[in-house]
Amino acid sequence: MNARGTPKDNGGSPALEAAIAALARDARAAALRLATTPTEAKRAALKAAAASLRRNATNVLDANARDVAAAGCNDISGAMLDRLVLDQKRLDAMIAGLEEVAALPDPVGRVLESWTRPNGLRIERVAVPIGVIGIIYESRPNVTADAGSLCLMAGNAAILRGGSESFESSKAIVACLADGLRAAGLPEAAIQLVPTTDRAAVGALLRLAKDVDLIVPRGGRSLIERVQAESRIPVLAHLDGLCHVYVHAAADLDMAKAVLLNSKMRRTGVCNAAESLLIDRAIVTRAGELIQPLLAAGCEVRGDETFVAADRRVKPAAPIDYDTEFLDAIIAAKVVSGPDEAIAHVNQHGSHHTDSIVTNDDAIAERFLNEVDSGVVLHNASTQFNDGGQFGMGAEIGISTSKLHARGPVGVEQLTTFKYRVRGAGQLRP
Amino acid sequence: MNARGTPKDNGGSPALEAAIAALARDARAAALRLATTPTEAKRAALKAAAASLRRNATNVLDANARDVAAAGCNDISGAMLDRLVLDQKRLDAMIAGLEEVAALPDPVGRVLESWTRPNGLRIERVAVPIGVIGIIYESRPNVTADAGSLCLMAGNAAILRGGSESFESSKAIVACLADGLRAAGLPEAAIQLVPTTDRAAVGALLRLAKDVDLIVPRGGRSLIERVQAESRIPVLAHLDGLCHVYVHAAADLDMAKAVLLNSKMRRTGVCNAAESLLIDRAIVTRAGELIQPLLAAGCEVRGDETFVAADRRVKPAAPIDYDTEFLDAIIAAKVVSGPDEAIAHVNQHGSHHTDSIVTNDDAIAERFLNEVDSGVVLHNASTQFNDGGQFGMGAEIGISTSKLHARGPVGVEQLTTFKYRVRGAGQLRP
Repeated sequence: MNARGTPKDNGGSPALEAAIAALARDARAAALRLATTPTEAKRAALKAAAASLRRNATNVLDANARDVAAAGCNDISGAMLDRLVLDQKRLDAMIAGLEEVAALPDPVGRVLESWTRPNGLRIERVAVPIGVIGIIYESRPNVTADAGSLCLMAGNAAILRGGSESFESSKAIVACLADGLRAAGLPEAAIQLVPTTDRAAVGALLRLAKDVDLIVPRGGRSLIERVQAESRIPVLAHLDGLCHVYVHAAADLDMAKAVLLNSKMRRTGVCNAAESLLIDRAIVTRAGELIQPLLAAGCEVRGDETFVAADRRVKPAAPIDYDTEFLDAIIAAKVVSGPDEAIAHVNQHGSHHTDSIVTNDDAIAERFLNEVDSGVVLHNASTQFNDGGQFGMGAEIGISTSKLHARGPVGVEQLTTFKYRVRGAGQLRP
Repeated sequence: MNARGTPKDNGGSPALEAAIAALARDARAAALRLATTPTEAKRAALKAAAASLRRNATNVLDANARDVAAAGCNDISGAMLDRLVLDQKRLDAMIAGLEEVAALPDPVGRVLESWTRPNGLRIERVAVPIGVIGIIYESRPNVTADAGSLCLMAGNAAILRGGSESFESSKAIVACLADGLRAAGLPEAAIQLVPTTDRAAVGALLRLAKDVDLIVPRGGRSLIERVQAESRIPVLAHLDGLCHVYVHAAADLDMAKAVLLNSKMRRTGVCNAAESLLIDRAIVTRAGELIQPLLAAGCEVRGDETFVAADRRVKPAAPIDYDTEFLDAIIAAKVVSGPDEAIAHVNQHGSHHTDSIVTNDDAIAERFLNEVDSGVVLHNASTQFNDGGQFGMGAEIGISTSKLHARGPVGVEQLTTFKYRVRGAGQLRP
């Protein structure tokens, strides 16, 4: 079982509640120290953690093998098993990830704005860590290293709650992160793993609003929705991406075919993959041509009458197809009367994640960029560019679908908040 | 009765649920239009609303008189009655407020950052409205005009839920705001009042996560905590201010006396008023002198043994006093061993709202500014400067105690979020 079932539990023994509360208090104390920890100490901890992970590769892979064996007994799905399994290559990627995060610019302490008031008060808005961040995720053990390291670089204490099926792997990885923290003289409570697979632990964590500042759920829709429903703590959701490609009448058809194919098929199981295609009625005669590369690549197209008439391989779309995140080689296709209908459709049926227009008409493109209410809107580019690395932010914890605090890729900068520092010379308010 | 009791209700008839859902859908449609409404139209609406309020002063005051009469029958407290009553002066202030908001710079469309990727993608982070904001407040009818106008200027649709005791007043004020919207050709659904005093309406509103993006509760602690507990929608809380003045050993004592007096006594019922005084053991012989101005101004001092010994008017403090937001002419006073204990005390007992250090030692001041985990930290200045107007932000909806999205004063800029606009030339992700 994974964390999906967890948040509904309100039970939890007093001992468990107390243990989770103690963990969060330790995290708070660590966070107060991390807030003023110099960049070099954070980097040293991450590099030492990478070295420890390299040294302890066998331990980590053994622990993972125990998880995989237990998962086999529990008959989990092939996709989940694939996410769970670590090999040397995945371990190397995890180690490289730690070193990459260690090389990122420190986001803490950036002066975001500063000004002086007529009374002489000097006001600065400065980036500071959020504090204590709880990350609740499913089976991938690499999230343990990725999330822990990103939180640390941004000066936050992390409380990690992975899926119970990856518990042994996560424990082994966290032990290496703890080595790194110790080597750099930082508190081990900076990165803690919830030390039990008891589901009630998540419910307990979600109630600790005094000592936990933010919850980041990563995983399937049901996990995220339950966390959103149960949490007394603000949630930065990474929800579904129902992304559109809109081919406008003035599009370059070759560009449109390439952007569409890349947006849909580069990877299909990711949140920034296109799930719906809209094309203008004015270019309806090109509908068949537009979807040839998709069909040739093995994508199922579910279309309206126009698309069904254009190619015998197209299946008729049901209304629900325009509201479905397939996460698979399937796309819903529809003719719209023009930009008004396209924009309205995207705002109504999309998930405000990532949407792209293909057109050579810059005025129409600007309308789309301004009127589509999504975290990332693109003109003549693939939806799959919505990614921290592709944006130049470095590693990311995911793509936020929340509208507040951070939209789009969540990297180290997005794991900070701000405070105001005000310097005076005895000013009094009249 | 006011909104306090409301959020616990999960009942609500299907008809009520449907009515609130329809209101939210109308708000969403209005928000999509407001997102691209030119600055001048928003200004025109606010100026026309001010003019309508001036023209309809008698109506509004009559409506308020009905509210006050009903409140009299319901035997509400004197403080609540004071907040409820409108007179020509308060009405004039409301009208001036609308005109002030109309003169603010438009926060929408600001390009916050922009960069070009090696592949030629041009990325812009641009300020956009949040969308639909629900404001839940208590008896002050002026919040209806203040919150509605700030939301509008930031391009948001507002759903206002005032206290039921000010319902008639709010209806009359919203009618004037609607006049303004109509005059500027904007949708009336841009500023809507929940059209019933039924408490179940708030519960229904807090569940509409699809069409409401943010809830801003303004009022007492119980209102805010209940909204936080019940809401499926992100909440920007305006909670308590347990603010400190810390007088360090190297303080200028005259400055300290003045900053302390102003922080505590300028106004006592506000969230940025000081509630606790900390002084260094090194200057313990000056404790009595430091609190003379407070005592002379009629402030009750509840102190530890040192303060009790320093002046016979000082009452012994109970431990709870250091965790109490008095909102009154009372202050808790305590001797600390030095900056370490002072910072630890503030982080432990404060509410992370506003804290000030008085010292001539700049290195110690920097430590305090960096290590105290509060939205606003000050050096040699009154805590009562934590205010949108004093910060130069113009009108504010309140002071956020949330750690995410916005800390400190919430003005029009804080009522926006951002999106990424990405412009390409057919780029595909490798």
